[in-house]
Amino acid sequence: MALIVQKYGGTSVGDTERMKNVARRCLAAQKAGHDVVVVVSAMSGETNRLLKLVAQITDRPNEREQDVIVATGEQVSIGLVALAIQAQGGEAVSFLGHQVRIVTDSTFSKARIKSIDAQPIRAALAKKQIVVVAGFQGVDETGSVTTLGRGGSDTTGVALAAALNADACEIYTDVDGVYTTDPNVCPAARKLDRITYEEMLELASLGAKVLQIRSVEFAMKYKVPLWVKSSFTEDPGTLVCEEDASMEDVLVRGVAYDRNEAKITVVGVPDQPGAAAKLFGALDAKHIVVDLIVQNLSRDGRTDVTFTVAKADFAKAHDVVKLAAQEVGATGVEVDDTIAKVSIVGVGMRNHSGVAARMFQTLSQEGINIQLISTSEIKTSCVIHTKYTELAVRALHTAFGLDAPPPVKDHPTVSENDALHGQKA
Amino acid sequence: MALIVQKYGGTSVGDTERMKNVARRCLAAQKAGHDVVVVVSAMSGETNRLLKLVAQITDRPNEREQDVIVATGEQVSIGLVALAIQAQGGEAVSFLGHQVRIVTDSTFSKARIKSIDAQPIRAALAKKQIVVVAGFQGVDETGSVTTLGRGGSDTTGVALAAALNADACEIYTDVDGVYTTDPNVCPAARKLDRITYEEMLELASLGAKVLQIRSVEFAMKYKVPLWVKSSFTEDPGTLVCEEDASMEDVLVRGVAYDRNEAKITVVGVPDQPGAAAKLFGALDAKHIVVDLIVQNLSRDGRTDVTFTVAKADFAKAHDVVKLAAQEVGATGVEVDDTIAKVSIVGVGMRNHSGVAARMFQTLSQEGINIQLISTSEIKTSCVIHTKYTELAVRALHTAFGLDAPPPVKDHPTVSENDALHGQKA
Repeated sequence: MALIVQKYGGTSVGDTERMKNVARRCLAAQKAGHDVVVVVSAMSGETNRLLKLVAQITDRPNEREQDVIVATGEQVSIGLVALAIQAQGGEAVSFLGHQVRIVTDSTFSKARIKSIDAQPIRAALAKKQIVVVAGFQGVDETGSVTTLGRGGSDTTGVALAAALNADACEIYTDVDGVYTTDPNVCPAARKLDRITYEEMLELASLGAKVLQIRSVEFAMKYKVPLWVKSSFTEDPGTLVCEEDASMEDVLVRGVAYDRNEAKITVVGVPDQPGAAAKLFGALDAKHIVVDLIVQNLSRDGRTDVTFTVAKADFAKAHDVVKLAAQEVGATGVEVDDTIAKVSIVGVGMRNHSGVAARMFQTLSQEGINIQLISTSEIKTSCVIHTKYTELAVRALHTAFGLDAPPPVKDHPTVSENDALHGQKA
Repeated sequence: MALIVQKYGGTSVGDTERMKNVARRCLAAQKAGHDVVVVVSAMSGETNRLLKLVAQITDRPNEREQDVIVATGEQVSIGLVALAIQAQGGEAVSFLGHQVRIVTDSTFSKARIKSIDAQPIRAALAKKQIVVVAGFQGVDETGSVTTLGRGGSDTTGVALAAALNADACEIYTDVDGVYTTDPNVCPAARKLDRITYEEMLELASLGAKVLQIRSVEFAMKYKVPLWVKSSFTEDPGTLVCEEDASMEDVLVRGVAYDRNEAKITVVGVPDQPGAAAKLFGALDAKHIVVDLIVQNLSRDGRTDVTFTVAKADFAKAHDVVKLAAQEVGATGVEVDDTIAKVSIVGVGMRNHSGVAARMFQTLSQEGINIQLISTSEIKTSCVIHTKYTELAVRALHTAFGLDAPPPVKDHPTVSENDALHGQKA
């Protein structure tokens, strides 16, 4: 018998018929002999409906009050899912964030979990009840309602699994697992059986929208085995887990891309201490998150500094940088929002040379010019012109053997040669 | 400076524009020098929307889970109203039932308030914040969310006023006060300046839908002055308060009617101990509430017992009574659902004779046959054929001087000759 935490996203509880389906799955898991804790999101569209009401009142809402409002979406879901389980003959009880003391800091709208009281849940499980917990919400030390930010229900699920020392956390969504790349861009994309936490983190931050990045960090920290599954199929899904020896045999687990960034270059920055600090300090003061930063060796006492920001921050960042560039005595600012970032990710890179070289060669063979390069231990990213995105993704997917046909049983090492990015089930 | 609790019903917070209007009223009260606590209901239609979702899942919902769901309506309202106050430059903070420890019993869907922790509210008022509290909801001793039943927000308002020892509780609704009778039936109906708790209780139970009866009981118990006002006008409304000497000068404060009852007569009940107990015990076992009961002297060892029930319970009650009548050896059962109950209410009846007689005479003059009569200290009710309802109400309204023109200043005793029943503002 195992203790399983199942988390169902907004589309999985999008209407009452789908909630009945969720109830069936919970009961099936219980019938299979497991203790079941279910975390649910708000019905799809509900959080946006509530935010629209807020927007009708004010465009600068107090975040404590906004959290009070949006937390109701999950509250409705837990009640309805508990009722659906009961209507199918099961035993169920719902809990809100404050009822299981999901205590967070007071950073309203993006609070971080500090502790959870597992006792009420254990007591309910001991009574053979299926426990339905509201995702996305908690309370701070003073008892105010907090929310964990978009996708925060994933984090609730993983945090509960950690607090309960659960055997697994299953994240149910409308995709049936993690793919080697976006199947919309690359038809040869294949679902992965397994992926390491580190790889998932790199892929999530690069644009795969399957799992909230914080929930993966949480799962990694507490070694919670994390399954990504579809609530609409019986597919086993993808396991996000700790690295083991066999997983290193694969050089590249997946290919990701991101077209939502823009590039800013500060030209002719005097090569003196403090210039970069001034530049990025000014951006930080405006809460603009910078992704890649590239600075090459200086020539004639001056250097160029290039970085990327989210497109949404582009105009603001440009204004900030123009001023800061004058202050540090740079000669100019150049911008470009027609870029894409393409990345390959895999723990195998750590112990194998030549992976980056093969990436550059592949892009070169397709006639794609590389504008920026950035590398980490298990990831290599290139910034290219946005028009080459699909071409680059497909070429890299093929070059690193990701679109090989499914392996046969007697080639176990090849069987790791698998999956990344969500695909609609 | 006074401490005022204002309660706004569902139509008063029916959309975000109306919430902004509520915010203006709260701020005006604060600007006038008062400490302001606001209790709000769910946006009109919201509770029904939530109950519809429940009905899609099950027709026999667990009431604990249903309460979790419907309590979200008020939660959304408090957040939005707090934001609306802030958007107008005010200071506001919202509180849910569990945050101000509105502790109730565990009778889900119609819980009763046991205690309230006024401390968090006092602390917020000391910081000059307008305090916005969710109506209709509380928590039981185990921390489960409870609701107080339809109209429970009135009770929340009065309970908070009692706990805070407030100077007044103002109930804002879409009617501008309590009327002498239903203006839809009797154009001569006039708004009352004042009415006693006892009169309000008799009138509420007789069909005036202005205030929840429990909130009036609560206000009477703790002597909370209760104002019924419209959130859409500046009319001072009606004060529900303790009786004083001047209020006794008026014989009849108002005329009420109820067309939602049906009459059942058990004919030829043997006049022996236990017959009535068996009859009404059978009805009680099916949770059927009986209103009027009339039994006259027996003749030839047999008597007739007549009672009224809500029309909604009529068919069920008829079935129950047919069986019970056989058991007690009665000769038959007669039913009639074309009845209306017309009542006159006033504390002045206590010390004046002839009020009932004048009622019977008035009905007689109009050719209306009286089927049943029931009296209490401050009320006399007659059951008549439903077709005479309007005629009876208008005749009684005139007979007891209720449609006299507004009094002039130098006739103070006449100025009590006033109001009953809600009128659309």
